[in-house]
Amino acid sequence: MNYHFSSRVPKSDVDPVGNILKIAGKPGIISFAGGLPAPELFPVDQITQATDQVLKEKGKDALQYGSSQGIQELRDVIVDRVKIEGINTDADHVMVATGSQQTLDLTGKIFLDRGDTVIVEKPTYLCAVDVFKSYGAHFVGVDMDEDGMKMDMLEKALIENPSTKLIYTIPNFQNPTGRTMTLSRREKLVELAEKYDVMVLEDNPYGAVRFAGKNLPSIKSLDKSGHVIYMGTFSKILAPGMRLGWIVTDTKLLNKYTMMKQSADLHTDNLSQYIVAKYFEMFNIDEHIQSICHLYQKREQLMMSAIHKYFPSNVKCSQPEGGMFIWVEVPGIEDTQALFDDCIKNNVAFVPGEPFYGDEGTPGTFRLNYSNMHEDQIEEGIKRLGAAIQESLTKSLV
Amino acid sequence: MNYHFSSRVPKSDVDPVGNILKIAGKPGIISFAGGLPAPELFPVDQITQATDQVLKEKGKDALQYGSSQGIQELRDVIVDRVKIEGINTDADHVMVATGSQQTLDLTGKIFLDRGDTVIVEKPTYLCAVDVFKSYGAHFVGVDMDEDGMKMDMLEKALIENPSTKLIYTIPNFQNPTGRTMTLSRREKLVELAEKYDVMVLEDNPYGAVRFAGKNLPSIKSLDKSGHVIYMGTFSKILAPGMRLGWIVTDTKLLNKYTMMKQSADLHTDNLSQYIVAKYFEMFNIDEHIQSICHLYQKREQLMMSAIHKYFPSNVKCSQPEGGMFIWVEVPGIEDTQALFDDCIKNNVAFVPGEPFYGDEGTPGTFRLNYSNMHEDQIEEGIKRLGAAIQESLTKSLV
Repeated sequence: MNYHFSSRVPKSDVDPVGNILKIAGKPGIISFAGGLPAPELFPVDQITQATDQVLKEKGKDALQYGSSQGIQELRDVIVDRVKIEGINTDADHVMVATGSQQTLDLTGKIFLDRGDTVIVEKPTYLCAVDVFKSYGAHFVGVDMDEDGMKMDMLEKALIENPSTKLIYTIPNFQNPTGRTMTLSRREKLVELAEKYDVMVLEDNPYGAVRFAGKNLPSIKSLDKSGHVIYMGTFSKILAPGMRLGWIVTDTKLLNKYTMMKQSADLHTDNLSQYIVAKYFEMFNIDEHIQSICHLYQKREQLMMSAIHKYFPSNVKCSQPEGGMFIWVEVPGIEDTQALFDDCIKNNVAFVPGEPFYGDEGTPGTFRLNYSNMHEDQIEEGIKRLGAAIQESLTKSLV
Repeated sequence: MNYHFSSRVPKSDVDPVGNILKIAGKPGIISFAGGLPAPELFPVDQITQATDQVLKEKGKDALQYGSSQGIQELRDVIVDRVKIEGINTDADHVMVATGSQQTLDLTGKIFLDRGDTVIVEKPTYLCAVDVFKSYGAHFVGVDMDEDGMKMDMLEKALIENPSTKLIYTIPNFQNPTGRTMTLSRREKLVELAEKYDVMVLEDNPYGAVRFAGKNLPSIKSLDKSGHVIYMGTFSKILAPGMRLGWIVTDTKLLNKYTMMKQSADLHTDNLSQYIVAKYFEMFNIDEHIQSICHLYQKREQLMMSAIHKYFPSNVKCSQPEGGMFIWVEVPGIEDTQALFDDCIKNNVAFVPGEPFYGDEGTPGTFRLNYSNMHEDQIEEGIKRLGAAIQESLTKSLV
């Protein structure tokens, strides 16, 4: 059978990251490759209580078709949640999405025609690259340092790419680097977005999972001209399996999102929306988030000190104050895939940097996840990784 | 703020059907406009039991990220379900979608480039029109009669439109007409799809809700060449609020769907997938479906006899043997919106036919829903509707 696909469909069936995760998942391998929250913290009992209550009080509503914009109860919860990001809004300006990934998809659908430019951090979240690519996006990566996207480079990119439709950023504990954008750069970003009349998509899945340093205002909270679209999710603060994200924006734009959302899946799972709204009514989410921060900090510190102990001293890595990832750059490694293969032989895994770049990547970079790894495995895993790095570096000297 | 939307975004913010449903939802109006299942039949207690069991046994899995293809347990349920449609497959050929609407969206994304033709029944499901339109589809409607899409007209359309990428059909108790395609036409459809090398999207949300007549084999079960994509849903046999649909197709094509699904929302809500799989393990779905059929048949019969009593004798209407809708055509009505307005004055509502047509519609047509209306309101509603029809006809004679 020879299918006649649209031009959106990638020719190849190869899924490089999928393959990496498959290999990394083999028994005996200590895998820092995934991007999962710690399941031992999922509040299963509390969610059971919330669910029983929902089905008792509103069973028929939870099981019936619902609103494309999302249920009022959950939008009220979101309005309350985004206050800590400095965003003052109301439920009319909020849409519930089927996870953050759907917000990315709808944003691509709403803004991108083939050939339009999307400016991304270099590196950036790989599933955002995939979905924008499916709408024909041309990517321009802007270099980062430990303070986030470099604003002079962003302005240069905006000048050189007048067809830019979107600037995509994860300002807090970015995936994959763990870096956070400083306040002065956030202010500059808002200024540039207005000056060049380009929309900013602010993706903030990790912001609440901060275990060190001080909370910064969201980019959206600094925006006066309406150029910033804010997106969040319950995946990292509660549970990702229920696929609940959200978007906050102006009414006119929100109407377009809601229309496109209706085409995409009519509405987000109602039962899960009611369960999460009820969870927020019955329990204290901040206490729960504190327990997540506490555990992730412990894991991050263990990983960091193991890195200092086992990696060559010239290895660079990010210093996240929250989130789930550390970004590593090993000078002298030209072939990251070969390093990955050496690691697999040593029974340890990571995700190589390459797929996180919209355009050309930096060799010798990779992402480590600490949120989903038990404390007693972290030092051993990093030790194996350090040995593999030494091996690869020795080979490349030969 | 002046947004620079993609060419996919409709210029207008007007949602004609949304507005109709809003007006139809006003207090005092007997509305046959919606398309909802009867919520009084949702098995709330059984779903509570299934949920408690899931959270006890697999809470962490249900709340964690999952597979884009869907959980094995639910795909096994689907493999079993589609046997009654004559489809023998395995879980590798099944993908779970976020409701049938997502299958429509992914199908558009995978097959349609701007200007490609989609052949649809005339009339057809309006949200399919919306979503295919968002991928730039050009629609060609094929006339139907009580036996479904006319095959000579289909072949003519295929010859006249060599850029046809997709034939979209709802063969059982179609939305909006309630009509069912005969076996001989299903066989012909498969033959034409192969001859003209065009994919068929077989959408079967209502097939199991049959209260009269004999079950027919699905189009997919007649297909030997791989041109038929089969889609189903739990929305009409269990509950739509959980947004669970599925697709059955060849491995190569299923891989593309799974890739695009990953871009669209990573995966379908895990908790709901586990709940429904557990429901099928613990309870007898066929008994439940019987109770749905029993109630819908009662409501359909009440509506049918009221139509014969209160509508002019030359009114044509479909004779559904299942599903949720009756399609009505009133000769002499040129302005269906004016009839709708008269109905609202008489406190009764329907959905006018126009939005169900991919291209030009037939005046004087409308859709009636009976599944979601209590028995004691049906006769009164149809009586009011009959009076409004008389009024409109009288006006048009003046």
